Amino acid sequence: MVTELVIQALSRLRQQKPLVLNITNYVVMNNTANALLAIGASPIMAHSKQEMAEMLSFSGALVINIGTLDSVWISRMLFAVEQANIHEKIVVLDPVGCGASTLRTETARQIAQRADKLIIRGNASEIIALAGEQAQSKGVDALDRSDAALGAANFLVKEYKANVVISGETDYVVSKNSTVMLNNGHAMMPYVTGMGCTLTALTGAFAAIGEETGIAAAAVLGVAGEIAAEHARGPGSLQINLLDALYQLDATTLSQRLKSEFQSEIKDVASL
Amino acid sequence: MVTELVIQALSRLRQQKPLVLNITNYVVMNNTANALLAIGASPIMAHSKQEMAEMLSFSGALVINIGTLDSVWISRMLFAVEQANIHEKIVVLDPVGCGASTLRTETARQIAQRADKLIIRGNASEIIALAGEQAQSKGVDALDRSDAALGAANFLVKEYKANVVISGETDYVVSKNSTVMLNNGHAMMPYVTGMGCTLTALTGAFAAIGEETGIAAAAVLGVAGEIAAEHARGPGSLQINLLDALYQLDATTLSQRLKSEFQSEIKDVASL
Amino acid sequence: MVTELVIQALSRLRQQKPLVLNITNYVVMNNTANALLAIGASPIMAHSKQEMAEMLSFSGALVINIGTLDSVWISRMLFAVEQANIHEKIVVLDPVGCGASTLRTETARQIAQRADKLIIRGNASEIIALAGEQAQSKGVDALDRSDAALGAANFLVKEYKANVVISGETDYVVSKNSTVMLNNGHAMMPYVTGMGCTLTALTGAFAAIGEETGIAAAAVLGVAGEIAAEHARGPGSLQINLLDALYQLDATTLSQRLKSEFQSEIKDVASL
Repeated sequence: MVTELVIQALSRLRQQKPLVLNITNYVVMNNTANALLAIGASPIMAHSKQEMAEMLSFSGALVINIGTLDSVWISRMLFAVEQANIHEKIVVLDPVGCGASTLRTETARQIAQRADKLIIRGNASEIIALAGEQAQSKGVDALDRSDAALGAANFLVKEYKANVVISGETDYVVSKNSTVMLNNGHAMMPYVTGMGCTLTALTGAFAAIGEETGIAAAAVLGVAGEIAAEHARGPGSLQINLLDALYQLDATTLSQRLKSEFQSEIKDVASL
Repeated sequence: MVTELVIQALSRLRQQKPLVLNITNYVVMNNTANALLAIGASPIMAHSKQEMAEMLSFSGALVINIGTLDSVWISRMLFAVEQANIHEKIVVLDPVGCGASTLRTETARQIAQRADKLIIRGNASEIIALAGEQAQSKGVDALDRSDAALGAANFLVKEYKANVVISGETDYVVSKNSTVMLNNGHAMMPYVTGMGCTLTALTGAFAAIGEETGIAAAAVLGVAGEIAAEHARGPGSLQINLLDALYQLDATTLSQRLKSEFQSEIKDVASL
Repeated sequence: MVTELVIQALSRLRQQKPLVLNITNYVVMNNTANALLAIGASPIMAHSKQEMAEMLSFSGALVINIGTLDSVWISRMLFAVEQANIHEKIVVLDPVGCGASTLRTETARQIAQRADKLIIRGNASEIIALAGEQAQSKGVDALDRSDAALGAANFLVKEYKANVVISGETDYVVSKNSTVMLNNGHAMMPYVTGMGCTLTALTGAFAAIGEETGIAAAAVLGVAGEIAAEHARGPGSLQINLLDALYQLDATTLSQRLKSEFQSEIKDVASL
């Protein structure tokens, strides 16, 4: 069922070539633009308030990534979220480094609070930090394991009416009614900068064509990353192979490789 | 004749290793610096007004690319154009996203108006938007075809005393007395971000050694892109192969591959 | 002796995975983050004053690169140096373009003056410009040769109590008591943008685990670059191969390839 959803979403994305507006960090702008092009979407990188309303009127989704943050960019991000709300566009938030500084944690929360339609994509420690103290009480030792952030993700789903993607060795895609586990990817992927940011950008591309869970993006990146790593001699060639693999990805490959598991039960977050 | 011009220009570029000053967008800074190095030029990325006069005193050309625009950078761009005029350096303008927002259209026109010596490099829709309403009346369906922008390009040649390069499946290099068509390149090239920006940067490198039509840059990128695509498994390897191909490009390869056509007639723009 | 130092430092780096805080230029942010990940360190790219104290409290070193400078970033850099001093962290300075503009020369000197613990990494002309008129009197013809900057480097060692790395065909690692020459690398490396910036970032990673001379970083990049170039068809594949080579680098390869020479005599700088 997950595989079918992903295959259909990818097919629709390539037909519609959605425009995705990105306000992202300096480090990954090139990568994420290339990943969006490789999968079949159309990236726009723009940040000026003077053109944000126009740009969001014809974009399919807004991706906000706080990787290289400062007060000027925060103001632009919050303004863009307002415009996304006015134009009823979904916001995909990447809370990079959330928990590493007060600035990042507070900014991520402000963005999450203000977006009317929201998907959050982060790693375990970012999701836990975004959810706040309750979740952190589970202990720092588990921060590298994405399942350690499941409680926090469910809290965010409820608090912000968001869908949440926790990326890690296993990706968890958490929404109000379900949790889906995706088990593709490769251990070398974290050695390429901005792999999570790429997932966030792809999540924006799929959201722009109506796949708002985050499942398709995580599935597509996991499978493409796995293929890329098989032929890589290190993180340099992995990064390049990944763009090639995203470009070549098709239904047959997805059917053969996608490893997903559907958890139908709703997590109880009352105890958090 | 075109082939000879390109071969001689490339030879001169590699001898002179011209310095090219770039005020460009965050997405492509790395790519365009690498393309300039690969072809044999010397990139400088600088934007502060405090060093612009000094930098332009010893640079061979100024490249301005409005891909990630805001009011702070607009002010820097206009100041740099002033300095380029004072030091009698050519300005190469890339009006990225011209037509997509009022900010971009107006900024591109301001830069075009103020530069004393100007080359404009854009895709069909950017060139049409820069030229204004008259050209746009040709209809939006044709926007993806570079020949649809020929009228607009001729208008810009006259209006700004500029040379104009329209890039697309066929590249058109339009100047006061001639239009040259270049038919190299590959359909996969638009799947790499900043391919047009790379052409703009290379145009600056050739302008710095006195080839101010834009022909050599378009020819060199078209041939190198074609070679790069032949060995590419997707846009990731295409981007890397392109730098290798620019680095390896020689007279023999250019002679064998370059497909150009010379249109001697001057376009009538009175009817625009 | 040098080889052993490098092997031990690399082993320690991979065990400790040090956090390296980078305030660097837009052109190389992606490259340097990837190089840090490939060698086994953990990059943080952050520049806001609002999070600098927090970020430096848990980072192992601060890398400052002035490649794309303006007054806003200068202020951030100087603030970060203050915070690095407070948290007793080493500062690694890359004076990109020092000498090409007054802004760069003065900013580089300000940073050098203020940092309590300092390593400087530049090419010959940057090191000579940073040292000032005395050194420059040796003549500009020699600027491309790193040995022409030895006097300047010794001056900087004394003036700022810094260790200095001059990179070039031969790298010179100059400290109070010794000068080490490293003879790896490849002639194609300068055709990739930001190769020096990568060396600076790696210098920060090794400084963060206590190797504060700069030897290990220069050795590791020289050997990896050499390996990368052997399989490269041009600067595109060189850049990618380099990340793969950094990732795969091991003690055996270092033992076999590293070419170093130890100069025990202290340079006389009185005559400068």
